[in-house]
Order: sequence, then structure tokens, then C-alpha cells
Amino acid sequence: MADIYDNVIELARRRGFVWPSSECYGSVAGFIDYGPLGAMLKRKIENLWRNFYIIQEGYYEIEAPTIGVESIYIASGHVKGFADKMCQCPHCKEYHRADHIAEEHGTPGADALSIEGLKDCIAGLPCPSCGESMGEVEVFHFNLMFKTGIGPGAQRTGYLRPETAQGIFTDFNRLSRFYREKLPFGAVQIGKSYRNEISPRQGMIRLREFTQAEAEIFIHPEHKTHPAFSRYADYVIPLWGQTQQMAGDAPVTTSMRGAVDSGLVANEYVAYYIALTHEILMSVGIRPDRLRFRQHLPTECAHYALDCWDAEIYSERFGWVETVGIADRTDYDLKAHAAESGDAFTVFIPFTEVRTEERRRILPDMGALGPKYRGKAKAIADALSSAEPTEKGATVVVDGKEYFIPSELFEIREETVEVRGEEIMPHVIEPSYGIDRILYCALEHAYDEEEVEGEIRRILHFPPPIAPVQVAVFPLVNRDGLEGIARSVTEDLTTHNILTQYDDNGAIGRRYRRQDEIGTPYAITVDYDTLEDHTATLRDRDSMEQVRIPTDALYATLEGLISGRTRFADLKNEE
Amino acid sequence: MADIYDNVIELARRRGFVWPSSECYGSVAGFIDYGPLGAMLKRKIENLWRNFYIIQEGYYEIEAPTIGVESIYIASGHVKGFADKMCQCPHCKEYHRADHIAEEHGTPGADALSIEGLKDCIAGLPCPSCGESMGEVEVFHFNLMFKTGIGPGAQRTGYLRPETAQGIFTDFNRLSRFYREKLPFGAVQIGKSYRNEISPRQGMIRLREFTQAEAEIFIHPEHKTHPAFSRYADYVIPLWGQTQQMAGDAPVTTSMRGAVDSGLVANEYVAYYIALTHEILMSVGIRPDRLRFRQHLPTECAHYALDCWDAEIYSERFGWVETVGIADRTDYDLKAHAAESGDAFTVFIPFTEVRTEERRRILPDMGALGPKYRGKAKAIADALSSAEPTEKGATVVVDGKEYFIPSELFEIREETVEVRGEEIMPHVIEPSYGIDRILYCALEHAYDEEEVEGEIRRILHFPPPIAPVQVAVFPLVNRDGLEGIARSVTEDLTTHNILTQYDDNGAIGRRYRRQDEIGTPYAITVDYDTLEDHTATLRDRDSMEQVRIPTDALYATLEGLISGRTRFADLKNEE
Repeated sequence: MADIYDNVIELARRRGFVWPSSECYGSVAGFIDYGPLGAMLKRKIENLWRNFYIIQEGYYEIEAPTIGVESIYIASGHVKGFADKMCQCPHCKEYHRADHIAEEHGTPGADALSIEGLKDCIAGLPCPSCGESMGEVEVFHFNLMFKTGIGPGAQRTGYLRPETAQGIFTDFNRLSRFYREKLPFGAVQIGKSYRNEISPRQGMIRLREFTQAEAEIFIHPEHKTHPAFSRYADYVIPLWGQTQQMAGDAPVTTSMRGAVDSGLVANEYVAYYIALTHEILMSVGIRPDRLRFRQHLPTECAHYALDCWDAEIYSERFGWVETVGIADRTDYDLKAHAAESGDAFTVFIPFTEVRTEERRRILPDMGALGPKYRGKAKAIADALSSAEPTEKGATVVVDGKEYFIPSELFEIREETVEVRGEEIMPHVIEPSYGIDRILYCALEHAYDEEEVEGEIRRILHFPPPIAPVQVAVFPLVNRDGLEGIARSVTEDLTTHNILTQYDDNGAIGRRYRRQDEIGTPYAITVDYDTLEDHTATLRDRDSMEQVRIPTDALYATLEGLISGRTRFADLKNEE
Repeated sequence: MADIYDNVIELARRRGFVWPSSECYGSVAGFIDYGPLGAMLKRKIENLWRNFYIIQEGYYEIEAPTIGVESIYIASGHVKGFADKMCQCPHCKEYHRADHIAEEHGTPGADALSIEGLKDCIAGLPCPSCGESMGEVEVFHFNLMFKTGIGPGAQRTGYLRPETAQGIFTDFNRLSRFYREKLPFGAVQIGKSYRNEISPRQGMIRLREFTQAEAEIFIHPEHKTHPAFSRYADYVIPLWGQTQQMAGDAPVTTSMRGAVDSGLVANEYVAYYIALTHEILMSVGIRPDRLRFRQHLPTECAHYALDCWDAEIYSERFGWVETVGIADRTDYDLKAHAAESGDAFTVFIPFTEVRTEERRRILPDMGALGPKYRGKAKAIADALSSAEPTEKGATVVVDGKEYFIPSELFEIREETVEVRGEEIMPHVIEPSYGIDRILYCALEHAYDEEEVEGEIRRILHFPPPIAPVQVAVFPLVNRDGLEGIARSVTEDLTTHNILTQYDDNGAIGRRYRRQDEIGTPYAITVDYDTLEDHTATLRDRDSMEQVRIPTDALYATLEGLISGRTRFADLKNEE
């Protein structure tokens, strides 16, 4: 098993986890179909994610469309900046990412090169498709958003969203009212996002259509202490900060409290979601020794982000794969939408006590202004209210023209006003998960094979809560009433919402293998003893050990096992 | 409440069910955002649907991309036929559906008119936007699929899927292997579909991006008896068949058994899914007296469909709205994909016993054919194998040219072969649900308002399983330890996966109103008695009655109420 990718993908196709999309028409790179077991696994991972972000954290989910109007992506910067540098091989006409060609031939960080720099860099390099020298080719920007037209006659340009986040930002004011303007508040979204990759070659790791789970948490810019920080304060994981990376050092193993206090992580919010992400990834079966949290280097980090960490999962085929990003994006996104839309993206934060402030009000003397300035009088009066008058008068600009208004034409009144609070533009903490990548890594980390009695036994060691099928039920033979009991056990478990598969096909050993291969954690066999003592065999996938359980206790036993309250070894001991 | 639409939509916006999409940039017709409560409600409706189709029926869910390559939609007919007849007002330049203009001015069934017919029909009619006479305008076809390009340089044309169904059809052969080629089998899909409507004006009823839940059930063309038909055989609902509609008669109230036996419904499969659909719609709170099942008239029904029924729900604003379609589509879809792709879309059905058949094999004498026909010899030999020889010889066509091959150049051998089964192209039963329309109708049917103590009380009477918030918890006052108990009750219920909202803001009466308005079925109030006797008040939204329940029994009580095992009235009686 030097590289288990081929084995995992072979199993995933054969057993209905992941299929090439529209295979009968020649599948297109960057698109996949989730088959019956894959879609079930994906839904379970998504629901597990919801348990953390919706139930535990209390952030509601919203659902915005996948097609967005152009203004959204002008504001977000995607129309201008969401592009890869592309070239076309003059010989075979294939399109490639110019930086990928450069990197594969020993230029690390080639994506930071300019168009000209890349052009020079690849001139002598071979085309990855046909092997001919690229020569003097043009390198140009290719925007990765899928474009379409909304309505007839191309009335409006629409883009398929490159991330789910923008749908939350554009709903900010509605959300703020929903949460009664009480910071912190957050919203999450799980759904499809799209990137029209130039030449995707990495299976489920680089998809043109993929699923994201993103949370946008709006917090007070000056209060970055998480109200539930104690939950993860003592959570210990290795963190690979900028300093360690640049010095060539190993990650620092630290508690989240320690990480914040030492300044390794910018604030409690970022640290909290690093720990929560670790917990989620453990729950889907990612191996702790193949997971690392890496801080973005100054060269990688977006200029506006205060701090940014990636959860990277090690894959034997793809190396360290970025699967989750956790960033403090400050007020960058809200500011951008405020500027583009003209709306305010702020919340009103009341002061603990009402403050009084001295304010100067300028009251124009309309009786004098009117006759003097005629049609301009109203505009001049408006401009005066924000003018900075001297003793002699004030200068205002109306329609591009300067007017000096002598001080006898207005009155300055000093007033004491009550100020109840202030408008604040929150900062945004964004944990962003790539569901397909996590699912692939969960498959790869769960996969194992061993030789049992001369045959290869393939197992997916899924944690029971995410296994697509949770229990299999077999009648030992298909007669003498065993099949009837097995069917009624199946029905009983199904009624209790345990996903159960009935299988009466072939030798028991083969049926076990079939279930091991799809990661079913438990299997029940109804045999002749069942007719006598009303017990059935319950077999554990990982240990392959068996215990006998009364048929009327099967649901309760399985419920305990799947929820993690009972361990299989304890059942053995009780026996 | 002559038309409750405005009230429902006002409430839906204000409380976070449905929002205009990207409002800060001017929202575009045909797109909506589901806010926190709307997204929760939608997910609950989808999961309720899954309980029926996945858990009860045993059809697995799959997930195919929303972007599909052109061949899929050439095969399905959408590239050619998925178009509306459009015209543009010469005065205000607005685009309209020509048939809608005609229908609004008294031409029923205008969508069946030809381009020329429509042109004549609307010439004297006013533009719905500016009111000027349309005059002699062009009427032309507008394809309703959103188009995009996959990869750089527009390598391939892609379409956003107009329905989820095609993703299941193109996976047919993979699915067939997954189910070990045992008919019947089925797959379902819940996800986004897209129709680039010309001028959508009906809010949530006509969206450009919407959610479908579709099942494709593959059955033997000659065995249309549903194995679990007994489940719905005695289910009685009114059905409005073609005959009744054309005769101006009322629907026939019948059991599903009766509907099939009398020929009103084509077969058990169609009848079964009509009844199941009725049950689903009842579960989401659709009022039975505002739901009807209407058979397609011969003019509406696709030529290939054997039978087709719509579940139509009555809306005060929109009239009878088509929300679900249930059709026996025969082998139309599989045949179309087989023809377009060249793959076989069949399953191998073994005979109960192996059959022997006499077959005639034609064996060409290559030694004689070779010298005589040179380069054509191989092709002639191939053609001979399916020829119909007479005693003298056989005529074959190769490359458009006829050859007569005398009988001495081949041998005819009669053979007995064993035939183990046959390749069958299944028929497809398709229940197809429009989730957004069902959700809107569930909102409208749940909505009620009444005057209580001089104030309007607005209530959403959601059935407890689909209510976005299931229980609210209030401390009577925010001191003396009441708020601590209320918070720990909230936490306990949340841990048990009951969606609970804590609210300590304002008078109790106002808090009840806020919860009534979002359809929360139960509210718990922690008061001073709680400190004494450890009970809290449980209030029922619909009856507004209250009972006291021990705080440690709250979870069990609510679980019983939400699942429907306990009725609130029974709790009252026990008291």
C-alpha cells in the first residue's frame, strides 16, 4: 500500500460511494457523482458539522442562491481578482496553469510571480500533456467564476458563487435584526460552490463544483474573547505557527489558553474554532497524526486578515491537503459591501449608560439666505450644517462652487445631546470547510486491508455515527423462519431510524466482507439458536468479536454503541 | 384576510423565514434567500420527505452535480424543447411570455398555440408593463436553461440542470449494479434546479433557482404491482380524473385499491405514490380541503407518459398551485439516453428456469470468401451472420452495396442454446416535488390571525415536527435564580436535539406572541413556584392552555408531544 488512492477509489466506485459524473457521455474533470453510500456519508458529515455549529454554537443556517448578481462579486473582489494565470500549449492546444508548470519544474511559490515572470519561467519547460517545449507563449488571467446570463436578452450577468460566504455578508442587515443587534452573532451555510478550474487533475481534491460549509461569526472589533472559551481552553493540539515554519521548527504542542496567551494565535475566537475544527475532524475519523494546523505565512495571508490557520490533512496521494481555513477577516468584507452598495453594514451598540455630549448645531437664517441665494439657498443651508465656521463665517461647496457665508446669516447653538450608543462595524471570524476534501480524507484514513485466511479483507473503519450503513442483519440461512425474524429485526431498527441493511445473499463470511468494505460497524446474525433463546449474534467490525444479545435488546444496545455511550468490549465483559 | 399573501410574506420577512436575495444590490426576480427560520423549516420538510422515501421506501439518495454537459440535455430533450414563447414590448422593451399575455386576456390554453397563432393573438393586446398595444411583435422561443462554459476557451458547453432527474438516469447502470440488478429499485435526489424564467412575478411559486426532491423508481414494465401496496390500499382521497374534469364533475373519493381496480389510476405504483404524497403533504400541515390530485388531461400529458397526476395546493393568492407531479414515464428517459450515449440501459432479468432455444448460426467459409471478395470479405462475413438466407444464398449490404452470396460459401448450423434470462429496459415511476412551493403553501396554510385582548395575535400552526423552533424557554423574571434554571432547561433540551430558544426579553405575553408568530408549538415558563416544587409551566400554542410539568420530565414530555405519541389534551387530563 505505497499509495492507497487507487484502492480507495476502486472501492469507492465499486460500492457506490463516488462515481464519475455523467459517465455515459464521457465524464468531465472536476465533477463527481456521490452514489448511494457516498451521499449518505456526505449527509452524515454535514449533519455532524451542523451539530457543532448550529446546536452547540447556536448559529442559524441560512440558504442563499448559488447564482449571484455581478455587484456582489465586484464588492467581494472576485470579478477582478479571482483568476489563475493560464497558458495554452502551442502544439497540443491544451490549457494549463502556468504556475503549476513552473512549480513542477522547481520554482516554488510560482503563483506569486508576475505574468511576465511566469512567461520567462516556462518558456523552456515542456507541456505537461504533449511534452513539447512551451516556448514563447502568452500567459493570461482566467477568471475562475462560471458566468451565465439571468433573464432573456442577457438582461443581467450572473455568476455561480465561488464561496457560500458572500450570501451571509449580503444578508448582514437582515441577520443583525434577526439577532436583535446583539453581538456576537453568526450564521452558517452549507451548499454548492463553483470554481471553473483550468485543468483539474486531482480527483475529489480539486472540483469545479464542490460543497462548502462556512460560518461567519460577527464580533465586536474590540472584544475578541469568546464567551464559551472555557470549553476549549485546555484542549491541547500541535500548532505550526509562522515563526516555527520560518525557523524550520516543529509545531508547538499547546493548550488553546496557552496559544492565545503566548500570542501564537491572535485571539480566543480563532483559537476556539481551531480546537472545534480539530474535534469535528476527529469525529469523522481523521487520524490525529495526519492532521496539522498551519498558520498562513505573511506571503500567503490576505493583507486584511489578522490571522489565518489551515487545517491540513495528510493524504498519501496528495500530500498535505488544505481542508479547513479559519481566519479573522476583520471588517474587510462588510466594508467592501458597504462601499459597493451604499448601505450601512453596522450594528448599534448601546452604551451601558447614556452619555451626554456637547454638540454644535448651525442654524441657517432662511429668511436671509433665501433672497440672497435663491435656488441655491436650500443646498447652502444643508451644506452649512456640517461646515466648520470661523468667527467671520463659513465656506461651503455647492455643486462644485465655493460660497462664503458671513456669520450673520446663521446662528451657532451649543447643545447638550444624549448619546445612547454607537454604530459599530463588526469583525468577522470565518471557519470555512471543504466538505468533499474532508470526505475523501475520511475515506482514505478509514481504509485498511489485511489478509484473512488467504483473502484480502478490505475495511473502512468509519466511526459509527458517520457510517452510511450502521448495522447489517443476516439470516444464517434463508429458511426455517430465520429470514422472518431477520426481516422483523431489520424493520424494528429501521423504525428507530437506524440505517439497516438486510442481506441474505451468499455465505456469512462473504456477507461480513461486503459490510466491512462499506464500513458497517455492526452486523447481526439470526441463527438456529435464535429460535431457542431469542438472542442473536452481534459482531463488531473492528475487532471481529461477537456477543449474543436478546433480540428485543438489539435496538437499545446498538443505540448505545452508535452514540458512543457503550463500548463493544464492555458488552463482551458483561456476557 | 381576503388575501393573506401580503401578511404571510410580511411575517416571513420580518421574522427571518424568507428574504429578498442580495437586497443591498437590488434583488432580482426569481431568487430568494431562506433566512434562519426558513432554512430550518426547509431542512425539516426535506428530512421529513427523506423519512418517507429513504427510510420507509428504501430508495437511496444520490448527489449529482448541478452543472451538466450538453449531451445529457440533448438526450433529455431540454436543448431542443425546454423553451417558452417570448416577445419584447416594442415600447418599454420589457420581455414577456406571449402565452401569458394571451391567457390574461381570455385565451385559455394559449401555451399550446403556435408562434404564428400567438403573434396574431397578442397583436391587439396591451403590454403588461407599460400598457401600450403590443402591435406586430416577433414571438420567439427562449430556452429556459442557464448556459455556461466549462473550462477555459469555452471548451465545453454546460447547463445548470432544469431538473434533478437526469442525474439519476445517467447513473442508471451504476445504480443497477449497486442494487444487484434486482427490480424494482429506486434512487432519489434533493437539490437545486434552475429555470431561467422570462419574467417571474409569482414570488416563491416561480423561482429561477429552486429545490426539487425527485424519486426515480425503476420497475419491470410488465409488473406494475407495488410490493407494499397494502400500506395504502385502503387510503381514501378524492381524485379528479380526466373523465370527471372533462364532464365537469367533482373528484371521485376512492380508496387506492378502488382507484386502480376501476382504471381511474393506471397502476398500483402511481396510486401508491399519490397516497404517499398525500400523507407527506398532511405531515407538513397542508389542509386537506385545499389539496387535490388532478390527472393530466390528454392535451397536457407528455405523449410518452402512461399516466400523470399533479398534487395541487390551493393558495389564496395563486389559486391551485402544482406542487408535486407523479408520472409513469414508461421507458422514455432510459431509451433516450441509450440512443444518445450508445450504452445499454437495461437490466438482466434471469428466467425462473433456464430456457433452451433453437438458434440458427451462419458460418461463412472464409477460405472461399477471402479470395473472392478481398478487402470486403470480413465485412461480408459479419453481415452474413444476421442475414436471412434462402436455399440459393443470401443477400447482404456492405457499405451501401448489395452482394448476393451463394449458399456454398457458408454453412447453416442449427444449435440448441441455453438462455438464462433477458435484457429488460425498466419503466420509470417519477414522483417529483417542488420544495419551495410546498414550503410557501405550508406557511400560508399554517398562518392565522385573531384578536386577543384588542391586539392582533398572529400564529403559524406548524405541525410540531416541522416547526423551526420546537420549544421556547422563558424565565418569568430575570433574577432570583429563575434565569439559571431556565438556562439549564434550555441546555438540557438542546443536548437532546430539541431546537430550543431561550428568551428573557420583555413581558411574558409579548414573548408568547413572538413564539406564536414563528410557529413554536410549546413554551416553558420558569416561575417562582419552580423554586418550590420543581415544576414549570408548559403552554400549548394552539389551545393556549397550560399544564405544570416537573422540570426533570420536560424532555420526555416534549419528545412525546413532538413525535405525536402524546396529545396535549391528555396531559391536561392527567393533571
